[in-house]
Amino acid sequence: MLAQNSNQPLFMKSYIFTHFTRQTLHFTLFTSVSLELLLFIKMEHFYSDYKIGMLGGGQLGRMLLQAAVDYNLEIHVLDPDSDAPCKNWGTSFTTGSLTDFDTVYQFGKEMDLITIEIENVNVDALKKLQKEGTKVYPQPEIIEMIQDKRLQKEFYIKNNIPTAPFVRTETKEDILKHLDLLPAVHKLGKEGYDGKGVQLINTKNDIAKGFDKPGLLEKKIDFAKELSVIVARNKDGQISAFPTVEMVFHPTHNLVEFLFSPAEISEELHKKAEKIARGVINDIGLVGILAVEMFLTTEGEILVNEIAPRPHNSGHQTIQANYTSQYEQHLRAILNMPLGATTQHCPAAMVNLLGEPGYVGSAIFEGLEEALNIEGVYPHLYGKKITKPFRKMGHVTILDKSIEGLKKKSDEVKNLIKIIA
Amino acid sequence: MLAQNSNQPLFMKSYIFTHFTRQTLHFTLFTSVSLELLLFIKMEHFYSDYKIGMLGGGQLGRMLLQAAVDYNLEIHVLDPDSDAPCKNWGTSFTTGSLTDFDTVYQFGKEMDLITIEIENVNVDALKKLQKEGTKVYPQPEIIEMIQDKRLQKEFYIKNNIPTAPFVRTETKEDILKHLDLLPAVHKLGKEGYDGKGVQLINTKNDIAKGFDKPGLLEKKIDFAKELSVIVARNKDGQISAFPTVEMVFHPTHNLVEFLFSPAEISEELHKKAEKIARGVINDIGLVGILAVEMFLTTEGEILVNEIAPRPHNSGHQTIQANYTSQYEQHLRAILNMPLGATTQHCPAAMVNLLGEPGYVGSAIFEGLEEALNIEGVYPHLYGKKITKPFRKMGHVTILDKSIEGLKKKSDEVKNLIKIIA
Repeated sequence: MLAQNSNQPLFMKSYIFTHFTRQTLHFTLFTSVSLELLLFIKMEHFYSDYKIGMLGGGQLGRMLLQAAVDYNLEIHVLDPDSDAPCKNWGTSFTTGSLTDFDTVYQFGKEMDLITIEIENVNVDALKKLQKEGTKVYPQPEIIEMIQDKRLQKEFYIKNNIPTAPFVRTETKEDILKHLDLLPAVHKLGKEGYDGKGVQLINTKNDIAKGFDKPGLLEKKIDFAKELSVIVARNKDGQISAFPTVEMVFHPTHNLVEFLFSPAEISEELHKKAEKIARGVINDIGLVGILAVEMFLTTEGEILVNEIAPRPHNSGHQTIQANYTSQYEQHLRAILNMPLGATTQHCPAAMVNLLGEPGYVGSAIFEGLEEALNIEGVYPHLYGKKITKPFRKMGHVTILDKSIEGLKKKSDEVKNLIKIIA
Repeated sequence: MLAQNSNQPLFMKSYIFTHFTRQTLHFTLFTSVSLELLLFIKMEHFYSDYKIGMLGGGQLGRMLLQAAVDYNLEIHVLDPDSDAPCKNWGTSFTTGSLTDFDTVYQFGKEMDLITIEIENVNVDALKKLQKEGTKVYPQPEIIEMIQDKRLQKEFYIKNNIPTAPFVRTETKEDILKHLDLLPAVHKLGKEGYDGKGVQLINTKNDIAKGFDKPGLLEKKIDFAKELSVIVARNKDGQISAFPTVEMVFHPTHNLVEFLFSPAEISEELHKKAEKIARGVINDIGLVGILAVEMFLTTEGEILVNEIAPRPHNSGHQTIQANYTSQYEQHLRAILNMPLGATTQHCPAAMVNLLGEPGYVGSAIFEGLEEALNIEGVYPHLYGKKITKPFRKMGHVTILDKSIEGLKKKSDEVKNLIKIIA
């Protein structure tokens, strides 16, 4: 439409251009107002004051904001830490609790769409916002289910998703009733993360390490590898999966230390892992991105360990190594845009940059420059001023033509970079 | 060093950790204080309050800020337009003239390092800042030379860099003295950009179109293709070149419409173009990134057309298609870090999203969603609210396994997306 008509209402604008230019949709549009409204809603993100609110302002949010620049998106961030990684990068940054009903509700009331980069948020506020017309992706009911590891496991069972055997527990004493499950892992139902809220119970003698809060006891799995598949689903139901990756955890701290993409597994196992991940997101009906962490058992079985309804540590390498990054994919999914191709350019590794034990204070990235001398090394620092033992301060993505080259470089990078104070 | 010693001065911190951990440098460091200081200065970018000032807040700056997130860099932006593409994304945004001495000087005084994303800036202020100890990359003397197309051409001649024959002119009347050069292009010496300040003089009859300001008359080149090579150089003198790309300009407006990377030229011409570009940046001694635009003549000669000392329209595709993006490369260069690999993952195209003629007003990106349905299509919108005919509103990067596939997709994208109001 011409400039002199620009005082027409926005809806009319959309209507007219849809009519004149989307010829293939012409007839549909004249018979379906709802489809037309949908088109209008989808397009407005790029040129109007469509407001997206993000709960959490950590590194995952920071990389999401980076991706959002390319789509002209207005993203407002809420985080309890006034010095969080997102503080300088969103449209606005609000300091406040993510678990407090009023804080989340008041923040969300101003938004057209809410998303999360951490799942420990007040779900009741999100449900109320959703009821009042705000879009919330991932959906509050799904966040609520995932927040509780017991509900998560029960969901797997109900949907025939392969997972390790488990029982509910209320106290550590309950473990005594299930000695047949040992060796097992005792997990807090809620609020465990990054290895917290998880205890290995090898024998009766370890029961004292268990939790006296609602939790679950899960048979310890003898796994050959830990795998992860990141899947995305938009509102239209389109599903897309990234290649299966392989995570190597720190021997004592339950944190990903290295990641290799693609995983060194057979083509058959790649297909199986992807099929499981696609099944999970489809069964849940989630809109957004979902990380599906899995065990590959020593018997060649794949079991779902846990899921996270947000960009994930096991997808960082997609920024450099894949056509579409997990961050852009999440944005495409929650805005109901066509999902991007997940094709991988070349093998990639990811090394988490964790605070060195023994150091607390202003972070110094020792050895980073030497690491940059290695071809294909890309740092992503999270803007956290203070380092603490095992704090995630950044990560490094490594590209190489071969998995062998990657492994060599990953060890070099790991040995070169130390975050001290 | 341990946390309990964290009240030591920063310099000592650097000294101690260098001593204990960089074993290969141990002896050098004890005999060379200046090298040690250099190491200290380089490392501080990542954890201290090192301030980078950027002159210009347009789309190039916006993509530079995106890249800077990964390096924890504090970047402050100066731009005359309070609604410039960078306004929401830097550490701070100051509205002010880039050509006014005092504005640039006052802004720069607070910075440790100044860089640019547009070359039309006040060079005298930068020279004064440089004299007072602020780092300025690219160097002010180089910006000054490039700002004046006459000095630029004279530099090529002096350094045996192949370029089209030309003469200086002061008025359009001067063209009459050089009719032997016709058909020729009359160019304003200063402040021409994006096709402004350039007139084609085919015959004597066109002389009225010329300029009555200092300029140059350059023999019109019959070219087969327009090429560009982006090169980077850090302070240590390390030089790195991106693959040669091929630009297709709009038939009447002198703006890049399509770009293909790598250029469809022989291996020999690829080598020749790269060698010329490396020669130019080496001869100039520039620190930062330099776009070297070239003509491939119908006789197979390569002539340098013009150069730009900043990220460039002909390097946008590096964000998705190459190991290192031109933006990250510029940051690595100005901070004297090791330059990144320029390896390309797969063939790539870039389509500029220009405002459709006939429309002025709030921009609507018609057809963008349909374009996203095509595999390997990545939009980069610049956050400009108002569209005008031929205004650069964004670009789309397209990835494909083949050049043929790219060409097909580029045409599709070009036909699908229209920026109207």
